[in-house]
Amino acid sequence: MKIKSGDYVLLLSADEKTFLVIINEERNFNTHMGNLSLKEAIGKSYGDVISTQLGKPFFLLEPTLEDRMMKVKRLTQIIYPKDAAMILLKTGIHSGSQVIECGIGSGALTIAMASAVFPNGRVYSYDRREEFLVNAERNVGEAGLGAVVEFKLRDVTEGFDEKDVDVVILDLPAPWEGVPSAARSMRGGGRIASISPTFNQVEKTVSSLKKENFVFLETIEVLVRNYLVRTGKTRPYERMVSHTGFLTFGRKVIV
Amino acid sequence: MKIKSGDYVLLLSADEKTFLVIINEERNFNTHMGNLSLKEAIGKSYGDVISTQLGKPFFLLEPTLEDRMMKVKRLTQIIYPKDAAMILLKTGIHSGSQVIECGIGSGALTIAMASAVFPNGRVYSYDRREEFLVNAERNVGEAGLGAVVEFKLRDVTEGFDEKDVDVVILDLPAPWEGVPSAARSMRGGGRIASISPTFNQVEKTVSSLKKENFVFLETIEVLVRNYLVRTGKTRPYERMVSHTGFLTFGRKVIV
Amino acid sequence: MKIKSGDYVLLLSADEKTFLVIINEERNFNTHMGNLSLKEAIGKSYGDVISTQLGKPFFLLEPTLEDRMMKVKRLTQIIYPKDAAMILLKTGIHSGSQVIECGIGSGALTIAMASAVFPNGRVYSYDRREEFLVNAERNVGEAGLGAVVEFKLRDVTEGFDEKDVDVVILDLPAPWEGVPSAARSMRGGGRIASISPTFNQVEKTVSSLKKENFVFLETIEVLVRNYLVRTGKTRPYERMVSHTGFLTFGRKVIV
Amino acid sequence: MKIKSGDYVLLLSADEKTFLVIINEERNFNTHMGNLSLKEAIGKSYGDVISTQLGKPFFLLEPTLEDRMMKVKRLTQIIYPKDAAMILLKTGIHSGSQVIECGIGSGALTIAMASAVFPNGRVYSYDRREEFLVNAERNVGEAGLGAVVEFKLRDVTEGFDEKDVDVVILDLPAPWEGVPSAARSMRGGGRIASISPTFNQVEKTVSSLKKENFVFLETIEVLVRNYLVRTGKTRPYERMVSHTGFLTFGRKVIV
Repeated sequence: MKIKSGDYVLLLSADEKTFLVIINEERNFNTHMGNLSLKEAIGKSYGDVISTQLGKPFFLLEPTLEDRMMKVKRLTQIIYPKDAAMILLKTGIHSGSQVIECGIGSGALTIAMASAVFPNGRVYSYDRREEFLVNAERNVGEAGLGAVVEFKLRDVTEGFDEKDVDVVILDLPAPWEGVPSAARSMRGGGRIASISPTFNQVEKTVSSLKKENFVFLETIEVLVRNYLVRTGKTRPYERMVSHTGFLTFGRKVIV
Repeated sequence: MKIKSGDYVLLLSADEKTFLVIINEERNFNTHMGNLSLKEAIGKSYGDVISTQLGKPFFLLEPTLEDRMMKVKRLTQIIYPKDAAMILLKTGIHSGSQVIECGIGSGALTIAMASAVFPNGRVYSYDRREEFLVNAERNVGEAGLGAVVEFKLRDVTEGFDEKDVDVVILDLPAPWEGVPSAARSMRGGGRIASISPTFNQVEKTVSSLKKENFVFLETIEVLVRNYLVRTGKTRPYERMVSHTGFLTFGRKVIV
Repeated sequence: MKIKSGDYVLLLSADEKTFLVIINEERNFNTHMGNLSLKEAIGKSYGDVISTQLGKPFFLLEPTLEDRMMKVKRLTQIIYPKDAAMILLKTGIHSGSQVIECGIGSGALTIAMASAVFPNGRVYSYDRREEFLVNAERNVGEAGLGAVVEFKLRDVTEGFDEKDVDVVILDLPAPWEGVPSAARSMRGGGRIASISPTFNQVEKTVSSLKKENFVFLETIEVLVRNYLVRTGKTRPYERMVSHTGFLTFGRKVIV
Repeated sequence: MKIKSGDYVLLLSADEKTFLVIINEERNFNTHMGNLSLKEAIGKSYGDVISTQLGKPFFLLEPTLEDRMMKVKRLTQIIYPKDAAMILLKTGIHSGSQVIECGIGSGALTIAMASAVFPNGRVYSYDRREEFLVNAERNVGEAGLGAVVEFKLRDVTEGFDEKDVDVVILDLPAPWEGVPSAARSMRGGGRIASISPTFNQVEKTVSSLKKENFVFLETIEVLVRNYLVRTGKTRPYERMVSHTGFLTFGRKVIV
């Protein structure tokens, strides 16, 4: 599997900086370690090396889902991979799932979900802010996942077009406003997830989920601690991201 | 989509106990709240309710990937969903991926990966302990994922049969012993992940990964904090699982 | 410094169980490893050993402040040493300080503060529940600190007798009800601390502190992670206490 | 209690910047909000306000132990107050204690311990680096605690002069080298504490403590999480200090 024009490559420098680029015969890519002629990557394999005009090497890595998410063009704070990973797992999104997302942000979570439902499932992504939809649609398209996502400009309180979806994800300043719309569009046994930064949002969302008869409610926070591993000198890193958001999950029942 | 004989259902009681059962016309299932005749679930939908002979209701929920993992028959400590979710995301396992797993445990992570590579990918699961392979094979089969997993009885130091796989996962007491075998079976740009409980294992594994020229090494720990959300009385839970394992990731390059 | 009748000793067994006892010539103390005749401790030093009739050794340790706190007779959840340590440090309680405490619980924090203000300072401990005051007074007395603590049966809304104290500690279900009383009894530059388990309590307390013109407000949570250290097999413990309470601090200004 | 020349004051600006200053009739202190004439503080009380020539107010706060520690002149990374607080509590240092400290750093922990043993106890502070001793001695002196601390220029392997001390604190790159010296200078039942950033140091220290017959060994890490409390919008801060050091504790027995 050789790299060709149009492929995505994650460039990795010796000092562990990364750049996500599209390979193109005519493109020169400027880095902190000099200029790369991307043409040189064509015909190489992932894992190979190309060098800048200064002789500085860059590995040609295959972008993972996490790389894709972290490198989207951002108009907003993105959903972190740690949170996206937990949302995918706990809502049970898989190949073929039908998913509504409300509050698209920059599309990072959309990419994660689109990758999971591929090729036969579908993600319906709603947002009331046109510029966010436009940016997210481009990000999703660049990840090669445009075929499984529909973008819709609408406020959550107006409801969703779909019925009987498997999963609804709410990433809204007032997630509780989206819960009734979600309930109407979900099938029995379906899963809902909401992400919000404050306790106050969590309280109101949980209260709304109870009112709409969701069960098996759970609110969690995912923390990732990084370690500096060096033989004889291993320790945690001295700083960490200590808060992104709280994740609330529930399941729809028929009452 | 009605529930029928042979389907898996997650039973949820009013006090939030769950049971994963196979629906069967003749089966009675005994709970802490009385007896359930599983026949009654047939023809109902996920989200519906059935009751014990004592009138206690149980919701019929659709098992998610997390439910499947947590309910495997355990001969060992399982890989927790929080860790499995991060492994899937960071290694970029997706529909079609070729994955080697060494150290199968009870098959919980195998189920998560099989679900992700479905239907065209493949998981090759090695273990040196026959009773673990047998138990894991049954767990994977019950999750309906047997078609995408191959089970192989072998010690890691003897190497793997496959070449050019996308991802290798090591869950071994001495993961560093598996690193050379992994390196030989991976394609350029492929991802490796190792999980171990102690710092000493992490140090040796990272040292071995460096020797085999893996790059972009990262060691993390995923912590999940649970919250008790009640209007006006919201707080973290008072106890938590504070350690399962450290996750180490790297990428194969060609040198 | 030899151990004598009436001294406190922390007994430590080989399996690291501890018991806080008063040495007494006639007392036999029953443990999970057999009977100890406490008379044998008399004339020994801290750090020495006595044995049960079954030959099981117990070390005679000197009780630290933490041991004293953890071994009080409990009618309530106690303030954990980790939280008490931070309260002492951040409020700057030291030898000679004048401190009001409202909500005495079982007296564990009272003991920590009394030890810090000893011998010339004073702790004024208020509680509206007589049985708690009685139990705490006994616990404080047994720690040998009764001389620096006054116990008062009163509801916080009735105010405190003292003026110009250095520090006020609120450990109440509704700490915000105690803030105005605290403000009236504190000198300029004095410190206030409040401990509560829920976010909702914290929000109301902070709001009340702002209204009463406290400055330099800070809310923190102290988490302690324990490690299992064994050569070649070191790791965090698998469970931890993940929540006791939030600590809120502020300083009184004159406006 | 009026502020007079020579007193320490913690200046607090409206945007919560703090400065620890000595009041002096002739001193002008330059801040990000303009110039303060410190003479104006004389005759005021803690909690009062003075203003810059631009009319920007600064509160005159009384420095707490934490303020003192955080504001020492630093030649090294200091021991954080969260760790110092736990060391004081778990080693049971109190008024009158005899304490050896080896590895003085910038003297922040020395200040905390000197404050705790005051007025009749004593802290013996050893370091092999003269410039650190000189800096720490000045910091301790400025905190008004010089009378209870002795400073000694010496390497830990040469042993300590004192016998039968209550507590020894090791803050060294190789704490295990100090354990035998500590053991010889402690009384039975005395407590030892060591602080180090890496797991490898912890392993070697614990191994050395076992060899020297210390008991009741415990290794912990103290994490402090900060919260942003605003009515209706309360959440954890997004970044935190996630590692300073591991604390190991033990008690000396006589064998």
